[in-house]
Amino acid sequence: MCLPGTVASVRDRTREGPRVTRRTALLGAAGVALAGALPPPARAVRPAKGRFADLTHTFRAGFPVFTFDPPARRTLVTIPADGFYSQEWTFGEHSGTHMDAPGHFVSGGRFSPEITPEELIVPIVVVDVTARAAADPDTMLLVDDLTRFERRHGRIPDGALVAMNSGWGAKAHDPLLFKGGASFPDYHFPGFSLEAAMWLVEERDVTAIGVDTLSLDPGDSSTFPVHVQFLATDRHGLEGLANLDRVPPRGALAYVGLIPWDEGSGGPCRVLANW
Amino acid sequence: MCLPGTVASVRDRTREGPRVTRRTALLGAAGVALAGALPPPARAVRPAKGRFADLTHTFRAGFPVFTFDPPARRTLVTIPADGFYSQEWTFGEHSGTHMDAPGHFVSGGRFSPEITPEELIVPIVVVDVTARAAADPDTMLLVDDLTRFERRHGRIPDGALVAMNSGWGAKAHDPLLFKGGASFPDYHFPGFSLEAAMWLVEERDVTAIGVDTLSLDPGDSSTFPVHVQFLATDRHGLEGLANLDRVPPRGALAYVGLIPWDEGSGGPCRVLANW
Repeated sequence: MCLPGTVASVRDRTREGPRVTRRTALLGAAGVALAGALPPPARAVRPAKGRFADLTHTFRAGFPVFTFDPPARRTLVTIPADGFYSQEWTFGEHSGTHMDAPGHFVSGGRFSPEITPEELIVPIVVVDVTARAAADPDTMLLVDDLTRFERRHGRIPDGALVAMNSGWGAKAHDPLLFKGGASFPDYHFPGFSLEAAMWLVEERDVTAIGVDTLSLDPGDSSTFPVHVQFLATDRHGLEGLANLDRVPPRGALAYVGLIPWDEGSGGPCRVLANW
Repeated sequence: MCLPGTVASVRDRTREGPRVTRRTALLGAAGVALAGALPPPARAVRPAKGRFADLTHTFRAGFPVFTFDPPARRTLVTIPADGFYSQEWTFGEHSGTHMDAPGHFVSGGRFSPEITPEELIVPIVVVDVTARAAADPDTMLLVDDLTRFERRHGRIPDGALVAMNSGWGAKAHDPLLFKGGASFPDYHFPGFSLEAAMWLVEERDVTAIGVDTLSLDPGDSSTFPVHVQFLATDRHGLEGLANLDRVPPRGALAYVGLIPWDEGSGGPCRVLANW
């Protein structure tokens, strides 16, 4: 499918040269065909305010999912044939780096559009369990990990997103490695213990918890107690986080760009950390 | 499709009552069925740092698109039947509130994952053309509008996202109203003039431009000069912004949560403003 005559009409229009400048003259003379051939001009990179880490995996076809089909894409149009380029995507909401909203497990729980901006821009704390997880993929983040974290890094701020860094973010390129098994219920990857998740609710009033694995619960769970009980507190969880080793344990701010999927059970979001 | 035995196994697990607290006791006693029936508990709303506006339309089936099919969704599983709830989505990248990346119109231009965090968290400036647009849906944001804006509100900061508020954000519930015509090339809605877009590049080194309509170019354009020439400067554009009337003309920071769609020509993003 193509907008009728796009390439030709773009060529005609750009010939008009509506404003002559160095760049528009360059582009205007030759139209989209030449514009397409030009390398993108160098842009001065604006100095960041502080440092950033991108906690989001590239959203790609075949990204490993807990269940249902992995994401798929197809090309709709291309610049050579149609004058512009676009793709179509099909995926379940729990694909890629994504949110579990309360409504994912709780009847009457909030859906994606109801998660407020105040719940999307929050301090992020990263608890490292990589060493134990390397030895035991069924390990869980425990209350002991949280109290040890606090002795070393200070108190977890109220309202934080508390993320588990298990090292699994680096395995997402390989579905078998990431899942630790071919299919549910034979998965093996770390997750939160119920006790730790509820301690964070009751003792630290967190906004959310996050994992770099496929599930808030460990992979060998078939009962999903963290999903059931943590989400029932009207909080959200993030799954499939990336690059948690690039964020300081404490002190960064997370921006969770959740698309407000209509009646969404959560869904893909862009997560950035800044400090 | 359902994870085998999810509801039953969740019930079994929650009966174990791994940690007794007010909430876990409440939920643990009855399992997910009761958890599902409970109203979400009241949460103390955390005081926002400053004010927020959500510049994103709810991403919904049937949201008006310039071309191709509008977004579609289907329910994959439900809590009563399967123990959890999830949906599947199918849509073109230029659906809902979304980005046009350089690669949308420029061969060799950057795709979604290549847009940097520094280009996603930027000052936002909102230029109001609602009065003129109400009288003439084919109107354009002109260089005059920008110089008039600066006389009133001060200089547009370098690196900003400059958004056109045409009043079209309030029309997105009605495809015919939003498009101003049944199908391309009979659309009528406001957009940037090429001169204004390139003035912002050359005189103010903006990061991006944004519109509350379906296209950076006005609806009656069949040549898309802003798409061709602005995106060729390696900058991005945002389309389908919402609630621009709720943002101050100057002084807010925009967070553009673009999902890093693999080889994406742009795509759905969550846009928040904070000031």
